Amino acid sequence: MEFEANKKTDLGKLTEALESGMQQHAAAFLSDLEPAEIARLIESLPPTKRDIVWNLVDESDDADVLAELNDEVRSRLIAGMDTADLLAATEGMELDDLADVVADLPESITAQVINSLSRRDRERLAHVLSYPEDSAGGLMNPNTIAVRPNVSLDVVLRYLRALGDLPDNTYSIFVVDRNDRYLGKLRFARVVSSNPDELVRDVMDPEAHVFTVEQSASQVARDFQDLDIVSAAVLDSKQCLLGQITIDDVVDVIREQADREILSMAGLDEEDDIFAPVVASTLRRALWLGVNLATAFLAASVVGMFEGTLEKVVILAVLMPVVASMGGVAGTQTLTIMVRSMALGRVEDSNARWLLYKEVAIGALNGLAWATIVALITIVFFSDWDVALVIGAAVAINLVAAALAGVLVPFVLRRMRIDPAIAGGVVLTTVTDVVGFMSFLGLGTLFLT
Amino acid sequence: MEFEANKKTDLGKLTEALESGMQQHAAAFLSDLEPAEIARLIESLPPTKRDIVWNLVDESDDADVLAELNDEVRSRLIAGMDTADLLAATEGMELDDLADVVADLPESITAQVINSLSRRDRERLAHVLSYPEDSAGGLMNPNTIAVRPNVSLDVVLRYLRALGDLPDNTYSIFVVDRNDRYLGKLRFARVVSSNPDELVRDVMDPEAHVFTVEQSASQVARDFQDLDIVSAAVLDSKQCLLGQITIDDVVDVIREQADREILSMAGLDEEDDIFAPVVASTLRRALWLGVNLATAFLAASVVGMFEGTLEKVVILAVLMPVVASMGGVAGTQTLTIMVRSMALGRVEDSNARWLLYKEVAIGALNGLAWATIVALITIVFFSDWDVALVIGAAVAINLVAAALAGVLVPFVLRRMRIDPAIAGGVVLTTVTDVVGFMSFLGLGTLFLT
Repeated sequence: MEFEANKKTDLGKLTEALESGMQQHAAAFLSDLEPAEIARLIESLPPTKRDIVWNLVDESDDADVLAELNDEVRSRLIAGMDTADLLAATEGMELDDLADVVADLPESITAQVINSLSRRDRERLAHVLSYPEDSAGGLMNPNTIAVRPNVSLDVVLRYLRALGDLPDNTYSIFVVDRNDRYLGKLRFARVVSSNPDELVRDVMDPEAHVFTVEQSASQVARDFQDLDIVSAAVLDSKQCLLGQITIDDVVDVIREQADREILSMAGLDEEDDIFAPVVASTLRRALWLGVNLATAFLAASVVGMFEGTLEKVVILAVLMPVVASMGGVAGTQTLTIMVRSMALGRVEDSNARWLLYKEVAIGALNGLAWATIVALITIVFFSDWDVALVIGAAVAINLVAAALAGVLVPFVLRRMRIDPAIAGGVVLTTVTDVVGFMSFLGLGTLFLT
Repeated sequence: MEFEANKKTDLGKLTEALESGMQQHAAAFLSDLEPAEIARLIESLPPTKRDIVWNLVDESDDADVLAELNDEVRSRLIAGMDTADLLAATEGMELDDLADVVADLPESITAQVINSLSRRDRERLAHVLSYPEDSAGGLMNPNTIAVRPNVSLDVVLRYLRALGDLPDNTYSIFVVDRNDRYLGKLRFARVVSSNPDELVRDVMDPEAHVFTVEQSASQVARDFQDLDIVSAAVLDSKQCLLGQITIDDVVDVIREQADREILSMAGLDEEDDIFAPVVASTLRRALWLGVNLATAFLAASVVGMFEGTLEKVVILAVLMPVVASMGGVAGTQTLTIMVRSMALGRVEDSNARWLLYKEVAIGALNGLAWATIVALITIVFFSDWDVALVIGAAVAINLVAAALAGVLVPFVLRRMRIDPAIAGGVVLTTVTDVVGFMSFLGLGTLFLT
């Protein structure tokens, strides 16, 4: 986290220009920025200002800015554009970006956009659209350059020069046989550093990692990270080259995964844009509050079972939040590590038992330590040895229960095909609240009344 | 999150081979994997098994596996290696990886490793080591290829061919003047697609994004993501070329940032490796439990102020966790969005007020809605209209307080140069607990006793 609060930021400058009514100024300022920077600025503005800024963006940047915006903001801006602007904006888009945007377009315009493409691009777009967005097929760009294995690098160089300007994110070309079957990857680094007489088949990398269209985007992201891939071919089941995935698209997947994981732990939607309209945000967050309310009343009903005890020993009411919250914190620690490690592919059935032992051991050690400390504090403040023993025992029990729940809850949820990052926290704190209240008030009933 | 529990995984196969005592099998299996995959497997094993597997790794892979391991696991493995193995493992390392490893080496070996380098590499290593690990300088690889602007591409191609094999992660070379001052970037994609008679100065990209050594790693990561950069030059204050940063290193930064953010929200260390020894993990987690204990007793002391009320109206003790937990959930939602948006550079002083209004509006809307629902549930279960009104009012108050705290806490912490991702949650739940108990029990005292 950086601390740049006092520096005049791009957003600060833009807001200033807008507020002083200097739209010319703001437009000139925007035209100096990269599309991704403009997209970030737009996402950082309240909805009303977003439309103003979007109208100030140079039309030639429209396509690139749209491609960079998050889905929610993009569909709102698109809804406000007229047909001519939309057609102009989508005209020069790369096919993989266009595939993302098409879903947001009104039907009447989709047809026009598709008709404006060449027949080859139309087929390719249909191809990309036929795969789920979160698969290798949905990530890939169908535009690739392919050469045959039995030509020399000199021929390849002449071919590339004839093609002229390559897209920015081209780092390699692919080698295919006469049936379009993939044979290997030819990195430009090899092309420029090898003797021009060498044959493609001797310089290409036949072992380069490839993906099949159906693979999940998260698997693609993991492989790109682990194997330091920058571009890779995407093949169909017959080994034919369909397209390529490049690191810039994968970086977006990695960021979105992290976003989703972080936000879902608080019960938030991955698209919960900070500047979404109030009502939309209210409704989205209400769901999680509702789930929490149900579990909170469940915990309250546990407390309710001990009304008689609480009437007699009111100090139990004072201290019961301490027991519950220690369990909640310890359990959340275990759960967070489990969920993170599952997302990174490090936790599976073959090491689950070891993990369970480890976490329970940590829970027991921390349980004993904190039970002692809580008991001592209770003695100091309330001079009540019996209450101190009861709360100490309850803390120890709850910390071990928290460790068990922290490991088992994500495994059980995964088996049930529920994402532990989303549902784990609420299930876990329900367990620690119930166990905490039950053990503390139960022991209190046994020994203090 | 994927569901692949039933597939036989690499980890499953490796564990099986180890448990059946077939070390030959395990070694052969490992030799087929990429270093990064081996590193991930090692990180997924309990400490005792880690050493066994590490000894089975082919020596030629040692350097690459070490470079891929996380700091904690790496330093443990290094501690168990003898001098000869360490020297062999560090021999072929890239300078930027070596810089990461050097810190973990015993002093006696560091000197030997450094002496084994060529003088030029020694100077370069010293250079990399002189920058903090989380700066552009710490991320950069000092090995770059530079050419002059006034030569033709044909000359560049001949030069590159004379150099022979380039490192895997080379996507461009750089253009410098005779004083080593940076002029631009020359992408291989341009080299292979342009006429060989063209001059470097006409084909290079003088506008390519560059970094200065002091820039923070998180700024580098943000620019790489926003501008779809794959490699960029790192310059000193005199515009001289010092090295380059490539996307593979930045992807690691992006992942580590996400890790840190997710883990720190649960008060965990970013290095909290799931298979760290029990005692180490216990101590690390104890800190956060201690902080939580202090705030829990603070909340308990608020409850303690109302002992007299609780004795008379015991239902308040039963329902008080509901009020606190609703506030906690709502506040965590706002806080999570704020922290995430701050990390992505979308929240700053110029849009803070708007955000505050928005979150308070959401808090008020959800507050009214949930106050009504909680009150209705209370009437249904306890048939007590007075208690229902009190709990409804307390829920509404706490949800608005949660929204205020969710926005203000991260701003205040950032001003105080404390990372809101780490400290935000504990401050926030302290606020919602205290406000929740105070408003519920306070209103209860006023209207129910």
